[in-house]
Amino acid sequence: MAITQTHPHPLDPATPEELAQAVELVRKQYEVPLHFKCGGLEEPPKEVLKKYLAAEHAGQPVEAINRWIFMMYYIKRTPRLFEVIVDVTDGKIVHQKELPRTHHAPVDRIELNEAAQVALADESVKSELDRLQLGDNVVVVDPWDYGKDDENEQRRLTQIFFYTRNPKNNDPSSNHYAFPLDFMVIVDLIEMKVIKICHLPLGAEEITTKHTGPRKVGNPEEPEYDHRLQSKPARTTLKPLQVIQPDGASFTLTGRLIEWEKWRFRVGFNWREGMVIHDAWFDNRPVFHRLSLSEMFVPYGDPRDPLHRKGAFDLGNVGAGITANDLSLGCDCLGLIAYLSGHVVNANGEVVAKNNAICIHEVDAGIQWKHTNHRTGQASVVRKRQLQLQTIITVANYEYIFYWIFDQSGEIEFETRATGILSTTPIDPDCKDKIPFATRVGDGVLAPYHQHIFNLRIDPAIDGHNNTVSYVDSLPMPRDSRLNPYGTGYITKETSITKSGTAQTDPYKNRIFKISNPSKINPVTLNPVAYKLVPIASQVLLAADDSWHHRRSHFTDAPIWVTKYKDRELFPAGDYTNQSSGGEGIRDWVARDDNVENGDIVLWHTYTFTHNPRPEDFPIMPAEFVRIALKPVGFCNYNPTMDVPPSNQAFNKSTAYDPTLQVGADAVTSKLNGLSVQGSDQHAQGSCCQK
Amino acid sequence: MAITQTHPHPLDPATPEELAQAVELVRKQYEVPLHFKCGGLEEPPKEVLKKYLAAEHAGQPVEAINRWIFMMYYIKRTPRLFEVIVDVTDGKIVHQKELPRTHHAPVDRIELNEAAQVALADESVKSELDRLQLGDNVVVVDPWDYGKDDENEQRRLTQIFFYTRNPKNNDPSSNHYAFPLDFMVIVDLIEMKVIKICHLPLGAEEITTKHTGPRKVGNPEEPEYDHRLQSKPARTTLKPLQVIQPDGASFTLTGRLIEWEKWRFRVGFNWREGMVIHDAWFDNRPVFHRLSLSEMFVPYGDPRDPLHRKGAFDLGNVGAGITANDLSLGCDCLGLIAYLSGHVVNANGEVVAKNNAICIHEVDAGIQWKHTNHRTGQASVVRKRQLQLQTIITVANYEYIFYWIFDQSGEIEFETRATGILSTTPIDPDCKDKIPFATRVGDGVLAPYHQHIFNLRIDPAIDGHNNTVSYVDSLPMPRDSRLNPYGTGYITKETSITKSGTAQTDPYKNRIFKISNPSKINPVTLNPVAYKLVPIASQVLLAADDSWHHRRSHFTDAPIWVTKYKDRELFPAGDYTNQSSGGEGIRDWVARDDNVENGDIVLWHTYTFTHNPRPEDFPIMPAEFVRIALKPVGFCNYNPTMDVPPSNQAFNKSTAYDPTLQVGADAVTSKLNGLSVQGSDQHAQGSCCQK
Repeated sequence: MAITQTHPHPLDPATPEELAQAVELVRKQYEVPLHFKCGGLEEPPKEVLKKYLAAEHAGQPVEAINRWIFMMYYIKRTPRLFEVIVDVTDGKIVHQKELPRTHHAPVDRIELNEAAQVALADESVKSELDRLQLGDNVVVVDPWDYGKDDENEQRRLTQIFFYTRNPKNNDPSSNHYAFPLDFMVIVDLIEMKVIKICHLPLGAEEITTKHTGPRKVGNPEEPEYDHRLQSKPARTTLKPLQVIQPDGASFTLTGRLIEWEKWRFRVGFNWREGMVIHDAWFDNRPVFHRLSLSEMFVPYGDPRDPLHRKGAFDLGNVGAGITANDLSLGCDCLGLIAYLSGHVVNANGEVVAKNNAICIHEVDAGIQWKHTNHRTGQASVVRKRQLQLQTIITVANYEYIFYWIFDQSGEIEFETRATGILSTTPIDPDCKDKIPFATRVGDGVLAPYHQHIFNLRIDPAIDGHNNTVSYVDSLPMPRDSRLNPYGTGYITKETSITKSGTAQTDPYKNRIFKISNPSKINPVTLNPVAYKLVPIASQVLLAADDSWHHRRSHFTDAPIWVTKYKDRELFPAGDYTNQSSGGEGIRDWVARDDNVENGDIVLWHTYTFTHNPRPEDFPIMPAEFVRIALKPVGFCNYNPTMDVPPSNQAFNKSTAYDPTLQVGADAVTSKLNGLSVQGSDQHAQGSCCQK
Repeated sequence: MAITQTHPHPLDPATPEELAQAVELVRKQYEVPLHFKCGGLEEPPKEVLKKYLAAEHAGQPVEAINRWIFMMYYIKRTPRLFEVIVDVTDGKIVHQKELPRTHHAPVDRIELNEAAQVALADESVKSELDRLQLGDNVVVVDPWDYGKDDENEQRRLTQIFFYTRNPKNNDPSSNHYAFPLDFMVIVDLIEMKVIKICHLPLGAEEITTKHTGPRKVGNPEEPEYDHRLQSKPARTTLKPLQVIQPDGASFTLTGRLIEWEKWRFRVGFNWREGMVIHDAWFDNRPVFHRLSLSEMFVPYGDPRDPLHRKGAFDLGNVGAGITANDLSLGCDCLGLIAYLSGHVVNANGEVVAKNNAICIHEVDAGIQWKHTNHRTGQASVVRKRQLQLQTIITVANYEYIFYWIFDQSGEIEFETRATGILSTTPIDPDCKDKIPFATRVGDGVLAPYHQHIFNLRIDPAIDGHNNTVSYVDSLPMPRDSRLNPYGTGYITKETSITKSGTAQTDPYKNRIFKISNPSKINPVTLNPVAYKLVPIASQVLLAADDSWHHRRSHFTDAPIWVTKYKDRELFPAGDYTNQSSGGEGIRDWVARDDNVENGDIVLWHTYTFTHNPRPEDFPIMPAEFVRIALKPVGFCNYNPTMDVPPSNQAFNKSTAYDPTLQVGADAVTSKLNGLSVQGSDQHAQGSCCQK
């Protein structure tokens, strides 16, 4: 059956029509208004999906799977939270459950804006603002999700941080994070009222006392990132660099299906994870069933009340799909770009388009392989072409950019970049004390230490769904007069993970994690076909084991987790991370002690960027990035890029730098010093250019 | 004084005239022929150079420094080795010394070719070849540097590995590494005669017995990398991707001086290190005096005689400048490219041009920073532009690509890629035994485990020459009811390295290495200005401490070394690595126990790629790569890329993918699934595009 509007592919994201229908079906059960929290595709159970995908890949008729939509909603202005699954094919509700009061839905922009207005109108808050003597300087507030630190706290809260626009320009686009104020406010999101005002430390003090004086505003050298407002003009030295593909792109995009250079996969999207990769096949063989960033957690390391409550789950508390940027042609992505969009539901139950949430384009990443035979002078060169899928999320001050990068070599990389603006807190400009858990990043501006902890969920299907995860270490051979007489030998030692649990990275043993199919033996290596995860060896959560940060962020305990596949086990800190008590998550799943050998398993990788800010990160942060790789090891019989055509000038059309056109060049000296200034024609006859 | 032909800059590489002059001056001392080994610039003593550079930067007149050329040579056909330094400005020899017999110069292509001919003509070798019954299959040999394993061995030797061309095509361009033979030969390079024939293991045997039978040749599925000889035609799916800079490049190249986006540095070149970065300044402040790959070592892990002698120093034994590829326009580099060349000396004392040894071009590396203010919808985006300097070396079977990458953010990266062909040894195609220290990569082809161990030499000058190296760990705060009541706190702890020695990496403490200038305090952080090295946490040498691999490769003991600067301490395994007994090197330098605090120091970083081959690495290896970063931390007062102009479509000229032009696209389905197919004009009005 062809994919049509009435029968979308089971992995296609929720359509606007489906979301609208689901909202309507839920709403008509009530006479009171509802406060919607999210809505998106409920993926089919794996056993059902597997049958569909197998038929699809075999070119056989498929049986349409009913489309289900998952939603969370509150009865407005009450703490009553529900989750529901609506079958929009048959037009009926198939699951509906009220959650206990310990469980809270994500925060949303509409309610946070309302809470912000409530805070600004509050008399006690106005009194604090008066104390600060701000004059006409406009106040800007950042409402955050709230890191509950009290077992008995069941109210749904927001913690609101206060700033002003730049006193020098009061511009709506000014960087308020450069002008933090000395108090913050907690608002009850159900009652919509201020429940507490907390003062913030202004120096190295261990205990914060209530401030009584006016603001002591700092004067950072460059507080602004908006080019219109910066103190210096833009440089004029940068020349354009453009990427063109005159014959079009090498990929085909058919709905949500991408085919590119032996790769075939589907691109999903939902409110929480944002971009998801489904059903990835390489060279007509299955490799990964599902790939996604499953959660992230950003705990802060300034121990002082109230800052200890800063610890956000940006997927579970906010939603990577909900916060996805609209990527504009020519700004966020360079080259020949395709876009994919998605849809989410807002607090009012309206369907909101997330246009251009994902951009797709090819990238040249240098040389893939090269060899020169010195006897003949012949060189063979092939370039490394990649396909990048990129999405950017904005969560209050920070931006995160996530890339799935496919390579002609059968490798997949997941890249994470952190940019945007540091979360700041004020510091008295006259204070010169050392603050052991923060950095001064501008005059009057302190940026506390924090960690960005990510978890990648890898649901493999290496030549089939029954896989084993093992780790392989490189170890010295013992000295032995017969076996290792010169002490130069080393071996690899493989240890299978047989029970669900955690494992450690170990770069000092060159440890890699293999995902293999014990039933498929590679005829060359005589070993099971496999992919390897090249993990990031990084620091775990620094907060204490009995801290709330630790309690609620299960996946931060260890870098590697293996679980037995179970439907709906997608989010390792639980489905309800906001103000979580840590009751559900991956710790519970591994505690089942399931057998995970040669079965349908999931591999989870936690990696951390411990971020101790530097002034170079201010007023906005040059992206810090980290890449994880999944690579074939004995999956293929030989290098899958042998048939990539040779790199040559006719294809690449590089041009030669001409120093006489550059400002300040000295052409005579260039020639004297052996600079090649020949034109491209002469170079085209170089020995590597096999046309 | 301007830089002219008569007075090159003291850091300009040796010119062809200077090398020719030096050869002549040395030669005329002798009546017998000489065998030259290398020749290149002897850099001035640092105290002299510092004065010159200080005057240059201050725009004051400079005092020309005499140009010196360093050379090694043998009296031909004798073991008598000399090093010499020739002052080519004054035309006289200023240093000349005969080396003891324990010291050997690098191998060179001319003598190795001669040794190859000697081996092929030897009667015992011919007898082995006859035994193998090769018919008309042409034999190809790979002479290597020899890993001496005997204290008393003073002869200069080469170990020669034997292969044939592909029996199916006997083509000169065929990949002989796919057809290894079962014996190898050792030749005396002075006497030019075969001294030993060693048989190679053909299976899992621990001790190799002498083979008596014919060759058992394997039949690898795809042994060839040359596209003309491969079994399958090239794919036709890949569309061109071109990089254009219609207004020219943003860098200026004046002789060997590069200026680009607040960066200013000189590019050196010599026979041994290849590309060197000198006198790097960022934003009119000195940061690094000298940056180079100082040595590399590739020890093999198959413990069996004779393979335990495979362990090559590709810089010291061969020379990264000597083996640098001629980078052809449009093959090795993409975009708007400038080239730099260099010169070396061959065995006959002739000057050889290494044309296009270094290519230089800009690269777009995605987004540098972005923030969207959700209140206004305004987004500011700046792209990450980099300048890449690339060189490629071919050492027998392997290629290494080295990049220095400069970023507008003040960061420098050094990237290493390994590609080319695995070193192979034969395996009986009928043998199915597990080989614990090697991988079968093709039928009849075994690739032993090995490590690629690199050392980066970093001579910093962070705002001046007196620096301190320290390491900074991120550690949890102890739980304390007053200081850390919620257990969320963490701090950084800095430890200065005060005495020359080694240090360890520790990703589990987020350890970074800071290079700071204690005399220059950043007015924002109130701490010394600094750069940090983000090291690679990797495995040390796996060979035993009492192995010859370990004995001669000093720098493989530890990932981090700090020494007090001393002229001519450039090569951490010694100046004479070939067949070295390990007598001199960085272990001796740190043993001096010098004070290294707040002084002229050198930081050395050893990093390892433990390479356990996979069939995907055969017949040629998709590049494996590793990047090291040097980043400002409290060097700048704020983000140095604020003034990079905003990313916009007028500058970037991206284009929109049009699915109707692609093969297999379904335009109707694309529209139904929310694909944006609007043209570029509409996107140009996106909110981030500040024109």
